[in-house]
Amino acid sequence: MVYILSVVYIVVSSVLIVKAQSQQLSGYPSSSVPNWLDTGSNAWVLTAATLVGLMSVPGLMLFYGGLTKRKYAINTMMMVLYAFSIVLVLWVLFEYEESFGSPLLAIKGFGVLGKPIPILSSGLLGSQAVIPLAQQAPNITLSTLAYFQFVFAAITPALIVGALIERMNFKAWMLFVPLWSALVYGPVAYWLWGGGWLMRLGAVDFSGGYVIHLDAGVAAVIAAMLVGPRLNEERKLAPHNLTQVAAGLGLLWLGWNGFNGGDPYGVTIDASIAVLNTNLAAAMALLAWVILDEAVYGKVSLTGAASGAVAGLVGITPAAGYVNGLGALVIGVVSGAAAWASLNLIQYRIMPLRNIDDATGVFSTHTVPGFLGGVLTGVFADPRIADFIDPGLAGALYGNVYQLLIQVIAAMVVIAYSGLMTFAILKLVSKVTPLRASEWVLRVGDREMHGEVAYDEYAFPIQVGDVEVINGRSRE
Amino acid sequence: MVYILSVVYIVVSSVLIVKAQSQQLSGYPSSSVPNWLDTGSNAWVLTAATLVGLMSVPGLMLFYGGLTKRKYAINTMMMVLYAFSIVLVLWVLFEYEESFGSPLLAIKGFGVLGKPIPILSSGLLGSQAVIPLAQQAPNITLSTLAYFQFVFAAITPALIVGALIERMNFKAWMLFVPLWSALVYGPVAYWLWGGGWLMRLGAVDFSGGYVIHLDAGVAAVIAAMLVGPRLNEERKLAPHNLTQVAAGLGLLWLGWNGFNGGDPYGVTIDASIAVLNTNLAAAMALLAWVILDEAVYGKVSLTGAASGAVAGLVGITPAAGYVNGLGALVIGVVSGAAAWASLNLIQYRIMPLRNIDDATGVFSTHTVPGFLGGVLTGVFADPRIADFIDPGLAGALYGNVYQLLIQVIAAMVVIAYSGLMTFAILKLVSKVTPLRASEWVLRVGDREMHGEVAYDEYAFPIQVGDVEVINGRSRE
Amino acid sequence: MVYILSVVYIVVSSVLIVKAQSQQLSGYPSSSVPNWLDTGSNAWVLTAATLVGLMSVPGLMLFYGGLTKRKYAINTMMMVLYAFSIVLVLWVLFEYEESFGSPLLAIKGFGVLGKPIPILSSGLLGSQAVIPLAQQAPNITLSTLAYFQFVFAAITPALIVGALIERMNFKAWMLFVPLWSALVYGPVAYWLWGGGWLMRLGAVDFSGGYVIHLDAGVAAVIAAMLVGPRLNEERKLAPHNLTQVAAGLGLLWLGWNGFNGGDPYGVTIDASIAVLNTNLAAAMALLAWVILDEAVYGKVSLTGAASGAVAGLVGITPAAGYVNGLGALVIGVVSGAAAWASLNLIQYRIMPLRNIDDATGVFSTHTVPGFLGGVLTGVFADPRIADFIDPGLAGALYGNVYQLLIQVIAAMVVIAYSGLMTFAILKLVSKVTPLRASEWVLRVGDREMHGEVAYDEYAFPIQVGDVEVINGRSRE
Repeated sequence: MVYILSVVYIVVSSVLIVKAQSQQLSGYPSSSVPNWLDTGSNAWVLTAATLVGLMSVPGLMLFYGGLTKRKYAINTMMMVLYAFSIVLVLWVLFEYEESFGSPLLAIKGFGVLGKPIPILSSGLLGSQAVIPLAQQAPNITLSTLAYFQFVFAAITPALIVGALIERMNFKAWMLFVPLWSALVYGPVAYWLWGGGWLMRLGAVDFSGGYVIHLDAGVAAVIAAMLVGPRLNEERKLAPHNLTQVAAGLGLLWLGWNGFNGGDPYGVTIDASIAVLNTNLAAAMALLAWVILDEAVYGKVSLTGAASGAVAGLVGITPAAGYVNGLGALVIGVVSGAAAWASLNLIQYRIMPLRNIDDATGVFSTHTVPGFLGGVLTGVFADPRIADFIDPGLAGALYGNVYQLLIQVIAAMVVIAYSGLMTFAILKLVSKVTPLRASEWVLRVGDREMHGEVAYDEYAFPIQVGDVEVINGRSRE
Repeated sequence: MVYILSVVYIVVSSVLIVKAQSQQLSGYPSSSVPNWLDTGSNAWVLTAATLVGLMSVPGLMLFYGGLTKRKYAINTMMMVLYAFSIVLVLWVLFEYEESFGSPLLAIKGFGVLGKPIPILSSGLLGSQAVIPLAQQAPNITLSTLAYFQFVFAAITPALIVGALIERMNFKAWMLFVPLWSALVYGPVAYWLWGGGWLMRLGAVDFSGGYVIHLDAGVAAVIAAMLVGPRLNEERKLAPHNLTQVAAGLGLLWLGWNGFNGGDPYGVTIDASIAVLNTNLAAAMALLAWVILDEAVYGKVSLTGAASGAVAGLVGITPAAGYVNGLGALVIGVVSGAAAWASLNLIQYRIMPLRNIDDATGVFSTHTVPGFLGGVLTGVFADPRIADFIDPGLAGALYGNVYQLLIQVIAAMVVIAYSGLMTFAILKLVSKVTPLRASEWVLRVGDREMHGEVAYDEYAFPIQVGDVEVINGRSRE
Repeated sequence: MVYILSVVYIVVSSVLIVKAQSQQLSGYPSSSVPNWLDTGSNAWVLTAATLVGLMSVPGLMLFYGGLTKRKYAINTMMMVLYAFSIVLVLWVLFEYEESFGSPLLAIKGFGVLGKPIPILSSGLLGSQAVIPLAQQAPNITLSTLAYFQFVFAAITPALIVGALIERMNFKAWMLFVPLWSALVYGPVAYWLWGGGWLMRLGAVDFSGGYVIHLDAGVAAVIAAMLVGPRLNEERKLAPHNLTQVAAGLGLLWLGWNGFNGGDPYGVTIDASIAVLNTNLAAAMALLAWVILDEAVYGKVSLTGAASGAVAGLVGITPAAGYVNGLGALVIGVVSGAAAWASLNLIQYRIMPLRNIDDATGVFSTHTVPGFLGGVLTGVFADPRIADFIDPGLAGALYGNVYQLLIQVIAAMVVIAYSGLMTFAILKLVSKVTPLRASEWVLRVGDREMHGEVAYDEYAFPIQVGDVEVINGRSRE
C-alpha cells in the first residue's frame, strides 16, 4: 500500500514539478526561455534601455537643440544623432567586451581593460549576461545587457555636446567621438562597472555619476577650452525654442527611470527604490533651484527649473540604489543648490576669464553634481538598501569612512584620466582637421554646415553683418 | 530497493523543487527578489508609472503649452512642471500614507484619512506593497506602488492648469497646489482607492474617473471663476503651436496605456483588457467628435479630434478594467458626443454668461466624461471582466442597480467636496497673494512672469497697446 | 520509520510545489493570473505595443508633419491620427480575427482569410492568445496580442501618408483607409503571420518587412500616381520644422525596439537579439547614408541621416529575430546605401518623368529596404538564431536556397496584390469623392482643409499669388 502510494505520489509530483518549471512558458521554443532567464527582468531592462535611448534620440537632440540659436539647431541635433550611431557600431564590434568582458590586461589581479572582441555571433547573442570580472550573472540575456550598456555609452559623448554647441567643426566631432568613446569611456566603465581596479578597491557608481557625468563633464570643460569660445557676438545663451527644451527635459527626467532603474540589471526591489529616489532627488533639486532663483532674481525661469532637475538627476545617479529616501532628499537639495551656485559663480564669472565657453553649463549641471553625488554616496549609502544590490556596502554615516575615501579617490582618477585623455585626443584630432568651423561657416550656420535649415523660410531670418538673410538669401 | 529509490527520488525532487523556486533569480541578491515579488508585474507597474509621468512631463506641458498664446507658453509649462515636482515631495513626506496607509481617522470602521507618515526608510521602501484598509497586497514593492500613485497625484492638479492659463499669478499657484493636493486629492484618493468609506460602500473607480478627472474638473471650474477670466482681448483660445499639441496628445493617449493598464497593480489579464478598452474608447470618442464636427461645421480640426480623444480616454478611465469591449465602445461614443455637446453648448454659451473662463475646456473634456464614465461603470461593469480584478462587482445591466446608485452618490460626494474645498483653499491663498497676475504682467507675458520667452526674437513679436514689441523691446 | 519520513516528505514537498506555483501571485485574483500567463512576457508585449503606438501618435505625426510645408501641417497630422483611430475600431470589430483567426476560407489547407468576427466579449478578451492556423499560443492574453497587432495595422496606412502629403482630399482619405486596411492589410497579414498560405509555404517576415513596409510602400507609389502630384510650385520637399522631424525620428527609432522586439510575442532570448539587431542596422544605415552624402555632396543633412536610419530600421524588420549580428550589419549597410541610391536615382530622376510625386520618398525608404530586407532574410537567416523563434528556419547562406526563393516569391505576391488592390480601391473611392483637394483649397492649406492653422499668426504668412496672406487674411 505504502509502495503504491509512493509510486503514485512520485509520478504525480514529478509531473507537477516539471510543469511548475516549464508549463508557464510552453508558448515559446524552450531554448528561447532557458532557466536562467527571468522574463520580468528581461522585460524591464529592455524597457529601461529604450527609455535611456529616448533620452538621447530625441531627448538630448531636443534639449540641446532648443537651447541653441536657431541657425545651429541642425548642427546641434546632428552631433547627438551621429554620436548615438557611431558608438553603437563600435560597441558591438569591440567596446562592449572592452568595458565588460574578460580582462585583456590586469595588473596583480586588478583589471585595466577587457578583451575588445565583437559580440555578433549567435552563441554570444543568445547567452546569459555575464560580467566575468565583477562576478555578476544577472538573469537576462547578453544581448539585453549589451544594448542597455550601449545606450549609456552613447549618451556620454552626447552630453559633451552641450559645451561645444555653435562652433565645433562637424568633421572633428566625427573623429572625436569614436576615439573618446574607445579610449576614455570604455576603460572608465571597465574600472567601475566591469570589475576593474576601482571596483575591486571598493569604489561604487550605481548608474554613472562618475562613468558618465563626471567623465563627460570633465571632457566638456577641456573640449570647450581647446575648441575655443563661440563667436563673440554669440556668446550669450539664446535658446531658440524652450518648448522643445521642455520636451527634451521630460524625456530626460522620465527616461532616467530606466537610467537608474535598470541598473540592478533586473527588476528587483532595488530597481523600485532607485526609481523613486531618482524622481525625489530631481524634484528636490528643481525646487532648490526655483527657490534660489526666486530669492535672488525674483523670477523663476523654465531654463533654471530644467537645469535644477537635471542637476538632481545627475546627483542621484551614483547613489540611487544605495541610499534611502532621506539620502535621496539630501542629495537632491545639495545637487540643485551646488549646481545653481556653480552656474552663477564659476560658470558666469570664473570660466569666462579663462575663455572657457561651456555654452549650456555642462560643468555646473553634470560635472559638479556627478562629483558630489558620487562622494555623497560614500556618506549616505545605507547598508539596508545596499543589501538589495551590493551586500556589505555602507557609507560613512553608517560607520564606513573608507567608502567616502575611496569615492573621492575614484573621482580624482576619473577627473585626471578623462581630462588628460580628452586633451590628447583633441590635440590628435586637430592634426587632421580643425576643431572649429570657420567664421564664415558660423555666421551662416546650419545651411553651410549641413546644407539645410531647421525651419522654413519666413520663420527665421538671420543677420549676416549688416544684411538680413533668410535661409541664405538676402531679404528683398 | 523501494527504500533506495524513495531516497534517491526525495533528494532529486527536493533539489528540483528548490531550484524551481530559486534558480531563476540566482543572479540577484536573494533579499532583492523575495517570494512575494512578481518580476513581470513589478516591471509593468514601473513602466506604466513612467508612461503616466510622461503624460505630465512633457505631455501636458506640450499639450497645454501649445494651446496657449505664445507669450504664455513658459508660464503654462511651468505651472505643470512645478506641480509635478512639489507633489512628489509631499507624496513621500506624508501624502502617500495619507491616501493609502492605515487609517488615522475612521468612523464606525469607515476610513476617512490615512496616517500621514513619510516613506523614506529602508524598511518601508523595500517592503511589499500593501493597502491595509483595502486588504490589497499586490506582488510588487511599496516603492513601485508609491511611485505609480505619485504620478497620478501629480497629474491631477496639472490638469487644472487648462482652465487657468493666461492669467494666474504663479506665486498663488505655488501655494495652491500643495494645499489642494493634501486637502482634496489625498482624502478623495483614500475614500475610493485606499479602502476608505466610499470604497467600503461599494463605489468603484478603476483608474481615476472620479479621483482624478472629476476631482480636478470641478476644481478647474471653481478656480476659473475665482481667478477670473483672461484679459478681454485674449479670451479666445488661440493655440500658438498645434504640432506641439499633437506631440502632447500622443503622449497622453499612449501614456494612458500605463494610466489604466497599471491599475491592477500587476500585469494580469485585467491589465491587458484595460489597455485595449482604453484605446478603443479613445478612438470611438475621436470619431464621434470628428463626425459631429463634420456634420455641423463641415470641417474636422485637430484641436477637435484631440479633444474627442481626451474625452474618450477620461470616460473609460473609471471603467477600463471592469467593462467588456462593447461597454468600452459605448462609453467612448457617449464620452465623445457629450464632451462635444458640452463644449459647444455649456462651455461656449452658458459659462461666459457667468464669466467662467475655462480656457481649454477642462469642464467638457474632464468633468463631464469623468462623471459619465463613472456612472456608466455602474451600468456596464461586466462581472466576468470584474472577476479578474474585483470579484463580485456587477453593473445595472447585469442586475445590480445598487452599483449605479452608489456610483452616482460617489460622484456627488466628490463634486461637492472638491468644489467646496477648492473654493476655501483659493480664498485662503488670496489672503496671502493675489490669484491673478496684474494687467501689465499679462500684457507682456512670460518675460514679466518668468524672465524669459519661449522662442528667439524674430519669431514672435507681440502687440502691447499700439506698439509692436519683440521680446520686451519695441521693434526698431 | 521510512514510512513516517515518506509521509512527512510528501506533505512538505506537496506544499512547496503548490507554493512554487501559486504563492508568487497571491496578490491578484487567481483567475487573472492563470498558469498560461507569463507576466514578464505580458508586460513586455504591452510595453512594446505602447512603443509602437507612439511611433504613429505622435511619432509619424511629427515626422511627416515636420517634413510638410507649414500650411499643410494640420492636414498631414490629421491623416495619421484618423488612420490610427479608424483602424482600431475595424480591428476589434472584425479585422483582428480576419488577420489572425480561424480560417474563413482555405484552399486545400492553405488559409486565405480568417473569420471576421468581433473581439468584444469577456470570454475572448480574457483568454490566452492563440493563432490557430499558425499553431502558436504565446503566454500572453488575447487582448495583449490584439492590441499589439493593432498598432502594426494602424501604422501601415499611416506610412502611406508620406507619399500623399500636400494634396489629398481628406474625405477621400477617410474612405480609403478602412477599405485598404480591410482589403489589403488584413489578408496579407493572414498570409504571412496568421498561418495563411505564404507562411505555410515557408515564407517568413519577422516583423513586417512585407506585411507593413512593402505593402504600404507599393500602395504609396500607386496612390501617388492616382492622386496626382502636388501643386507645381510646391513640388519641392520643404520641411517646415526639422526639430519636429527629429522628435519623430527618435520615437520611430526607439519605438522600433517594441516593433521588432515584441514580435516573439514574449520577452524571450529572441526578443533581446531582435532589439540589438534593430539598432545596429539603423546605425549602420545612417552611417552609410551620411558617408555617401559626405562623399557626393560634401554635406551631411539631418533629413538624410533620418532617411538612412529609417531605411535601416525597415530593412532589418523582416530579419531582426532571424539573423546574427553580422547579418544585421550587412542588412543595415545595404538598406541605407540602396535607399540612398534609390532616392537619388529613381525618386529624383525617374519618378518625375512618370509624374509620380512620392513627396517624402516612401518608395526609397520603405518599399526598397522592405523588399531587400525580406530577400536578405532568405540569405542570412541563421539557424542558431532562428532556433529561438522558428526552429528549422535557415537562409541560403546556411545551405537553404529554397528560403531565398520563397522570400522572393512572397515579395512578388505582396507587390502585385497591394498594387492591384490599391489601384482598385482608389478608383472606387474616386467615384464617391475626388481624390485631390481643389487648387484653391491647396493654395490656402490647413485653414480651408481643417478650419485651423498649426501656428499662431505672426509666425507664418503664406504667399497666395502676389498677395502675402497671414492665416487666410491678407497682411495689412
